[in-house]
Amino acid sequence: MNDISIRTARAEDKAAWLTLWQGYLTFYGSAIAPDVTEMTWSRIIDPITPVFTRLAVVDDRPVGFATCILHPRTWAVEPACYLEDLFVDENQRGRGIGKRLIDDLIAMGRRDGWTNLYWHTNKDNETARRLYDRYDKADNFVRYRLPLTP
Amino acid sequence: MNDISIRTARAEDKAAWLTLWQGYLTFYGSAIAPDVTEMTWSRIIDPITPVFTRLAVVDDRPVGFATCILHPRTWAVEPACYLEDLFVDENQRGRGIGKRLIDDLIAMGRRDGWTNLYWHTNKDNETARRLYDRYDKADNFVRYRLPLTP
Amino acid sequence: MNDISIRTARAEDKAAWLTLWQGYLTFYGSAIAPDVTEMTWSRIIDPITPVFTRLAVVDDRPVGFATCILHPRTWAVEPACYLEDLFVDENQRGRGIGKRLIDDLIAMGRRDGWTNLYWHTNKDNETARRLYDRYDKADNFVRYRLPLTP
Amino acid sequence: MNDISIRTARAEDKAAWLTLWQGYLTFYGSAIAPDVTEMTWSRIIDPITPVFTRLAVVDDRPVGFATCILHPRTWAVEPACYLEDLFVDENQRGRGIGKRLIDDLIAMGRRDGWTNLYWHTNKDNETARRLYDRYDKADNFVRYRLPLTP
Repeated sequence: MNDISIRTARAEDKAAWLTLWQGYLTFYGSAIAPDVTEMTWSRIIDPITPVFTRLAVVDDRPVGFATCILHPRTWAVEPACYLEDLFVDENQRGRGIGKRLIDDLIAMGRRDGWTNLYWHTNKDNETARRLYDRYDKADNFVRYRLPLTP
Repeated sequence: MNDISIRTARAEDKAAWLTLWQGYLTFYGSAIAPDVTEMTWSRIIDPITPVFTRLAVVDDRPVGFATCILHPRTWAVEPACYLEDLFVDENQRGRGIGKRLIDDLIAMGRRDGWTNLYWHTNKDNETARRLYDRYDKADNFVRYRLPLTP
Repeated sequence: MNDISIRTARAEDKAAWLTLWQGYLTFYGSAIAPDVTEMTWSRIIDPITPVFTRLAVVDDRPVGFATCILHPRTWAVEPACYLEDLFVDENQRGRGIGKRLIDDLIAMGRRDGWTNLYWHTNKDNETARRLYDRYDKADNFVRYRLPLTP
Repeated sequence: MNDISIRTARAEDKAAWLTLWQGYLTFYGSAIAPDVTEMTWSRIIDPITPVFTRLAVVDDRPVGFATCILHPRTWAVEPACYLEDLFVDENQRGRGIGKRLIDDLIAMGRRDGWTNLYWHTNKDNETARRLYDRYDKADNFVRYRLPLTP
């Protein structure tokens, strides 16, 4: 089995990221306007925004990604890291790539002093939750979210 | 009954905010180190950070607050607003102040183009959820959160 | 003479901005890699970055721009506004458009509480300095700048 | 002669930094309101703001500082670093501490990919300029700065 490595996305990864991103949106039955995708990619490679992507790479080819947003909190001096998007190419499932991406974020956070790493998932997404439960149980909190734009 | 107004916290509100903040932490059975509280206040009044507080004021006295963090997302160009802390002085409960604070944030978000306003609450917090359910039901998402600092 | 209006650049201004930006770079005998221009545009229309552009518009056509960066300072609570790029289409010179763009920034800064608005110019750029001197003399400071990337 | 080391300022350096900061303001014949000094310190130790301070330390005692602001630019993807404040305790002058602080920033910038490091100085400040001229000449640019707050 080929080695998996994890690294930060950079400008030359755009085409590979776009393919994965499209697969991710398709998986969730979602569509995003092209100008939003362009902005998201621009934020990912922009060193001055708090958005970043870690890529899982096999044979020099990106096969999965984790995209995060660092933001301040009111209960800690250190920032929290919100893992907004996690995806692994369907042909590469079952090799532990999702776990490698999360492990990598945990290691980054310990090194850089994030107060926590958190994410949301649909409560019925059993496949994903089997992986997540290896870290910890989901906590006792529910989420309220009000859309404000049309 | 006296009028309630909502406005942004400013430097001279520090003492009043500290009292409310302490009440809020006590309510949740939590304690926060004094240097974290100092940093949080500093971020609240710092115009260059994405943390801000709206105060509910009755008779020139702050009686409740909503503290939020604006952060970028990957699924939209516009920022999301995370309502991290909401509190109303116990002696002022039942007057609709919590609802006024949330309504104010919704109006700000519509004016300033936030993609959504969201918050978390303990699933067993029935009092809070009675208010929140007037806006919308909690969504179907659970939260995983891994602490990374000791 | 047709009216000049000043407004914030938005996504649909990209083509018009690109033409002006190219004119600006040509004027300074400079070239910028296309990926830098893409990033700059993305920052300009991204509501979460501190970079913004005000456009001077005549007959619905952008004919000049001012691009600024808001950043914190150590000597004030309020941010400073650095006017990095100012340009007016050569065919539109002599109509006071540069002055309108600066006046607009001064009005924004007074409204939003910037501590100051500043910019640099080559000390031999007499045309530009004739305009700038109408606001105030250049101050007594020289600039040292060390390039750190190849 | 005792060793000089350079490191990032942290919460426990507040008292030592305040003494140096006061010396710096006195040197420039300036005064700053206490709430501005509090905010500046808070930004310095806040990991989510782009303001940071490097301290020169001799015998475990801070004897000089460099305070910088990282900000985006329009001509590069990478941020620029503005060195706003540089100061060395008068009793420690002549030991090369100012140069050590600038050298440290240059090394940080090369490691972290800043596009440039820049600062301003009064054109008549001969002592400072003797040091700065060892890096490069001041460039050909003058600065215009309009105060916008009372």
